Amino acid sequence: MTKILVLGAGMVAGPLVRWLLAHDHHLTVTSLVREEAEALVGGHPEAEALELDLGDQQRLARLVGDADLVVSLVPYLFHARVAGHCLQHGVHLVTASYVAAEMAALDAQARERGLVFLNEMGLDPGIDHMSAMRVIDATKRRGGHVVEFRSYCGGLPAPEVRDNPFGYKFSWSPRGVLMAGRNGATYLQDADLRRVPPERLFRDMHMIEVPGAGDFEVYPNRDSVSYVDTYGLAGVRTIFRGTLRNPGWCDTFHAWGRLGLFDDAERPAAGLSCAEYVAALAEVAPGETVRAAVARKMAVAEDSLPIWNLAWLGLLGDEPVGEATISPLDLLAWRMQEKLTYRSGERDMIVLFHRFLVEFSDGAREEITSRLVACGDAAGTAMSRTVSLPAAIGADLILRGRVRARGVVRPVLPEIYEPALAELARLGIECKEDVRPLGPGT
Amino acid sequence: MTKILVLGAGMVAGPLVRWLLAHDHHLTVTSLVREEAEALVGGHPEAEALELDLGDQQRLARLVGDADLVVSLVPYLFHARVAGHCLQHGVHLVTASYVAAEMAALDAQARERGLVFLNEMGLDPGIDHMSAMRVIDATKRRGGHVVEFRSYCGGLPAPEVRDNPFGYKFSWSPRGVLMAGRNGATYLQDADLRRVPPERLFRDMHMIEVPGAGDFEVYPNRDSVSYVDTYGLAGVRTIFRGTLRNPGWCDTFHAWGRLGLFDDAERPAAGLSCAEYVAALAEVAPGETVRAAVARKMAVAEDSLPIWNLAWLGLLGDEPVGEATISPLDLLAWRMQEKLTYRSGERDMIVLFHRFLVEFSDGAREEITSRLVACGDAAGTAMSRTVSLPAAIGADLILRGRVRARGVVRPVLPEIYEPALAELARLGIECKEDVRPLGPGT
Repeated sequence: MTKILVLGAGMVAGPLVRWLLAHDHHLTVTSLVREEAEALVGGHPEAEALELDLGDQQRLARLVGDADLVVSLVPYLFHARVAGHCLQHGVHLVTASYVAAEMAALDAQARERGLVFLNEMGLDPGIDHMSAMRVIDATKRRGGHVVEFRSYCGGLPAPEVRDNPFGYKFSWSPRGVLMAGRNGATYLQDADLRRVPPERLFRDMHMIEVPGAGDFEVYPNRDSVSYVDTYGLAGVRTIFRGTLRNPGWCDTFHAWGRLGLFDDAERPAAGLSCAEYVAALAEVAPGETVRAAVARKMAVAEDSLPIWNLAWLGLLGDEPVGEATISPLDLLAWRMQEKLTYRSGERDMIVLFHRFLVEFSDGAREEITSRLVACGDAAGTAMSRTVSLPAAIGADLILRGRVRARGVVRPVLPEIYEPALAELARLGIECKEDVRPLGPGT
Repeated sequence: MTKILVLGAGMVAGPLVRWLLAHDHHLTVTSLVREEAEALVGGHPEAEALELDLGDQQRLARLVGDADLVVSLVPYLFHARVAGHCLQHGVHLVTASYVAAEMAALDAQARERGLVFLNEMGLDPGIDHMSAMRVIDATKRRGGHVVEFRSYCGGLPAPEVRDNPFGYKFSWSPRGVLMAGRNGATYLQDADLRRVPPERLFRDMHMIEVPGAGDFEVYPNRDSVSYVDTYGLAGVRTIFRGTLRNPGWCDTFHAWGRLGLFDDAERPAAGLSCAEYVAALAEVAPGETVRAAVARKMAVAEDSLPIWNLAWLGLLGDEPVGEATISPLDLLAWRMQEKLTYRSGERDMIVLFHRFLVEFSDGAREEITSRLVACGDAAGTAMSRTVSLPAAIGADLILRGRVRARGVVRPVLPEIYEPALAELARLGIECKEDVRPLGPGT
């Protein structure tokens, strides 16, 4: 029986732990909070739960050394440290996080030691790579050339629980969601490089319909251009990765950005109500109402969605902020978390949608789509299942010797994505492909 | 001195009448309401104001016979009748309306009689044609090939008067604006024909930034594909014409369409409040609130923009409908007209924006834009100036013998659009062109 060390027992770990135990692995699950880890393993005979502070390098090294493979679900900043121990002890590693520079730098050493450091093995990154590469590789085998690639992903409430004006609930840190709104983005549109500065992010918006899932706003997701290399799409004219949200999100966030609600610098808040805090942010002029000042700063009407949404969160109301100092971002995150939380039994939904335009040398063209729509159920939230099951499957593939690649790896290789997508489909997480022939171009 | 008969003295006629009088034409201005015509001519010695019912064919014939040219600003359904009299009496005709089948059928007869029936000589249609053709013809002269054409137009409040949640005020009939929301649309996107059914119109939305004017929602405007012929754009891959609105419009209108608010069938309203009328429309179930029923029908949250906007108009309130029967469309038009009207001194704004992608035989590519942003001022609303001044200039060109074309004509000919655009620019209605070189495609 192989031994897997699972670092982190947060919101997404449950499905991974259950799947690995069902596939005859021995698990050691660690958390900063022992009870969290215990709740996950649930007294299973082949699993132990430990309290672990990752600052305790000696203990971490010992635990890594005892394992055949480590799955790291802790914040990505810790991955390089964990990987260092893996190198030292000759242990494979799986994460669901983007390959940061520190991780990429370990590629040669991992290869030398015959190790696999499989990263980006979650949903986004993860299933997005796998489902895209399955289409891209199949297209190349058929002699096709991908000229456009658009990819959309979002974690949202299922349709029946969109009971708030944001059409959103938090399945991960509100702070993270809000921080992501401060990014710029880069993509390629018809061979033209588009650079979107942060203050324009939510204006670079369009709506799309995802069959079987509904209509969504899309705004661009960071650097899409790097995927030309990652996916082997040299010569592609359009490459765009976008985030899906329900209608109204982008207009609200654009206006809120203008008010400075995503700033993370602390501001004085002692004794202030939410409205007073916001009034200071809006620099209310003499004789001006808070609402008027906020509307002026946002460049919207006093009666408009961005203002109504602010009021709905209570941020124009009398409730005390309750802190001596707080940043606008943290105040907003607090109010959103209070009001936009999944209640027991409410389902979340994951939507992942790729759209390819493919040209063949005889002039024929096709639109190929790949679509994943997964809702939460008794087996876990859609977010936890789609993020952690790929990591579990990846760990299993490595331990069963099915991965020949060595070094720092993403799941863009058929030896990984083919069995992983097949197993995910068996678990109800199916990326469905459709092909639509188009008329020839010009 | 040439004699021009101006039929119709509505909201847009003022700038036309003043321009023609300043250019030494004698005018006869008619209206169903004499005072309206009198207000327009303002006692000018070279102008007379008459009351005229277009049903009075004899009188209409006599007035047409007395003129050298007719400008018809009445509803387009009357144009064919007017054109019939023009044929009989050998009189030229100018309209700002689309060429309907009845008008197109008169082409051969007008040619035979040496007459010009110049139509679509307003803003949209009108300036859109002229500014597009100037770019298209210049591009062809330079050996370029237009591969994409996107055109956007909207009449909106100037930024400082967007003081309502719609970002909209009515400069023409609310009924017309709402009826336009019942259309489907057709366009060409990368050589793929897109047919948008009416119920999807407001979901086929994206945002664009028009430099100097702001950010707008765009939804497709009827049949764009016919413009391949109108503009001589054989081989174009993308042709899209869209309507510009401020953020939130499309989501609201999409949801309202689901509720049936654009239906024009009369429904019983006697003794009903607005909320009771809407409740019947939403088919409130036992124990359900009106708001909940409306949200269910619209498939939105009770706290969401489409509901908030409905409430803002008073349509969820106690005010009596005040009619025995009324259609949802007319009730909505009434409430919107009440609350979304220009007050004295408030400026409107016209935005017309074309974006062309042009390819040259050596592989070079350019993005060419043409942009008109015009705000209302003491000389008239932007809508009235941009709709009626082209018709005035067109009439003048014909009467000065500058138009050689005969028959049913659109302003896509250089002999019309060149002098017309030059005069419009002199009047502050300038279509500004920009060229941006792009990297080669693949």
